[in-house]
Amino acid sequence: MRTATIALGGNALLRKEDSGTAEEQFDRMRKTCEKLADMISDGFDLVLTHGNGPQVGNILLQNEIASHTVPPLPLDICGAESQGQIGYMFQQTLKNQLNKKGVDRNVVSFITQVIVDSDDPAFEKPSKFIGPYYSEEEVEKIKKEKDWTIKKTSEGKYRRVVPSPRPKHIVEDEVIRELIYSEKSRNVVIAAGGGGVPVVEEGDSLKGIEGVIDKDRATAVLAADIDETFLIMLTDIEKVYLNYGEEDEESIDVMTVKEAKKYLEEGQFPPGSMGPKIEASIHFLESSGEKVLITTPESLLPASEEGPGTYIFPE
Amino acid sequence: MRTATIALGGNALLRKEDSGTAEEQFDRMRKTCEKLADMISDGFDLVLTHGNGPQVGNILLQNEIASHTVPPLPLDICGAESQGQIGYMFQQTLKNQLNKKGVDRNVVSFITQVIVDSDDPAFEKPSKFIGPYYSEEEVEKIKKEKDWTIKKTSEGKYRRVVPSPRPKHIVEDEVIRELIYSEKSRNVVIAAGGGGVPVVEEGDSLKGIEGVIDKDRATAVLAADIDETFLIMLTDIEKVYLNYGEEDEESIDVMTVKEAKKYLEEGQFPPGSMGPKIEASIHFLESSGEKVLITTPESLLPASEEGPGTYIFPE
Repeated sequence: MRTATIALGGNALLRKEDSGTAEEQFDRMRKTCEKLADMISDGFDLVLTHGNGPQVGNILLQNEIASHTVPPLPLDICGAESQGQIGYMFQQTLKNQLNKKGVDRNVVSFITQVIVDSDDPAFEKPSKFIGPYYSEEEVEKIKKEKDWTIKKTSEGKYRRVVPSPRPKHIVEDEVIRELIYSEKSRNVVIAAGGGGVPVVEEGDSLKGIEGVIDKDRATAVLAADIDETFLIMLTDIEKVYLNYGEEDEESIDVMTVKEAKKYLEEGQFPPGSMGPKIEASIHFLESSGEKVLITTPESLLPASEEGPGTYIFPE
Repeated sequence: MRTATIALGGNALLRKEDSGTAEEQFDRMRKTCEKLADMISDGFDLVLTHGNGPQVGNILLQNEIASHTVPPLPLDICGAESQGQIGYMFQQTLKNQLNKKGVDRNVVSFITQVIVDSDDPAFEKPSKFIGPYYSEEEVEKIKKEKDWTIKKTSEGKYRRVVPSPRPKHIVEDEVIRELIYSEKSRNVVIAAGGGGVPVVEEGDSLKGIEGVIDKDRATAVLAADIDETFLIMLTDIEKVYLNYGEEDEESIDVMTVKEAKKYLEEGQFPPGSMGPKIEASIHFLESSGEKVLITTPESLLPASEEGPGTYIFPE
C-alpha cells in the first residue's frame, strides 16, 4: 500500500486575479484533480488538504456587507463554511475525474477541528491578515464595536489581523486513519481544509477561537497524527530556492532535515511563504515522516518518485 | 449493536424567532446534543442528519446583499457551506456533551451529495420557497438577470421557488456504513445536512443542481442505503395527529405502514410538514426499516423504546 498526504495551495482552487465565480473555481479545481486522479489511478491512497484564503475572505466580506440584516458569524464558523464550500467542489470534481479514468473510489471531505494551545505565543502577537481592507474612518467605527486587532497595510489602508497559533493535534484523526488504512480502503479523504478550525481545550470541552492555522503546518501535524510517511506540498513554484530572487539563486533538488534547518536559520525561506512549508516538513520528518516533496500541481507525476521538485529526507 | 439514524429538524438548531447569532445556535444545539449524548451513552451508534433552512436562508441573503462585491454562488455550493457551518457546531457540541458524560467517541460531519433524477417531475414544478423576500420592483430586475422561478407569497411580496426532487441515492453511503458498522466502531456520523446537496448524473459525472431535497426524505434514503433498521425523526410535536387542529384531533401512538398510507391518502398529513415525514417513513419501512419513531428532542429517552411519540412499524 502506497499512501501520501498532499497539501494543495489556495491557488490551486482560486487565484487573486480570479473574480471568484463558481465556474472559475470548478475550472481550476478540475486541472488539479486531473493530476491527483492520475496518482490515485497509479495506486496511491491519498489524504488531501487545501487552503481557503480567498474563499474565507469572500465569506467574511459577505458577512460584513450583510451585517445589518444577518448577524455576522465568528471566524471559526466562517472557516467551517469554507471547508464545506471547497470540500464539496473538491470531492465532486475529483470523483468525476476518477470516474473518467474508470477508477472507482469514494471521495469524502469532512469538517476538521485542530487543537491549538491556549498559551500559544501567537495569541499575544496576531500576525495573519484576514478579511477586507478598511479606511481609517471605518477602523474608528470597528474599534468601538469589536475587540479586533487592526493593522495598517499601506497608506490609508487597514486590515484585521488574527493569531496564527501552531497546530497540536487533529481532533478527527482517528476517523481519517480508519478510512485510509482499512484493509480494503477505497477512500480518498479531504480534511483540514484551510488549516482546519482552530479550537482550544477548556476543561473537557473544545471551543473555537478566532484565528487561522497555517495550512501546511496543519497538514504536517495531520500526516504525523495518521502515521503517514510521504508528504507532498503543492505550490506555485516547482522547486525550493536558495538566495531566491538574487543573481546567484539556486534551486534545491534534495536536502536533509539538517540542511533545511540550517537554511531556515540563515533566513533563506521567508516567513509568509516558503518558511512554514519548510518548518512543517521538519516537524513531519522528525515524527512519522520519511519523505517530503515540494512541487507544482503540474509536476506531480503519477507515483512521483523522480518528478521535478524539491525532496527533503530525514537524513 | 444497536444503531439508529436520527433526523433533527431545523428548529433544533435555529428558530424563526432567533436573530441567528452563533451564541443562540450553539445554545439550541447544546440542548439537543444533551439528549443525543444520553442515547449514545446508553449504547446506541448514531447517524445524524439535520435541517438547514434558516442557515442556508442567511447564506443566500448574504450572497445577495454582497453581490456587488463578491460573486454570489449557486444554491448547491451555498448548501454545502451550510453543511460545513452546522456540521462544525454540531460535531463540536455533541463531542463536548459526550466528554461531559465520560463517553469517548469520534464525532465527524461530512459533506454529502444526494443523487436525484434529472427527469424528476419536480423540475417542471418548482415548489420549495427559498431565500429572501422581494418587492415587485426587485422581481422585475431579477427576471432580467437570472433564470429563476419567482412566486407571490402574499400581496406585494415575492420569493424564489426551487424544485424539490426526490432523493434516489446517497453518494457517500459506503463511507458512512464503514464508519458506523466497523467492528470497533467509536464513531458518530453527521451527514446529509439540509437534505444533502442535490446532484444529477450526466454521463459518468455528478453535477450540482439548484434545488432543495427534503431533509426527512433524504434521511430515509440514507437510512435505507446503509441498511439501518431504526429511524427517528425529531420535530416540534411529540406525536403525529389525526384531524390535527380539529375538535376531534387524536394523537397516534402506533401505526402500520398500511394505516400510514391510508391516512396519507385521506390528506391527514399536510404536504409542507408531516406529509414528507410519513412518506419518508413508508419508504424506509418498505426497504431496510423495521421501526420509525417521530417525537420531540425532549422526549427522546435514552434507548427509547417506550418514550412518548408516534411509532410506525412495517405491519
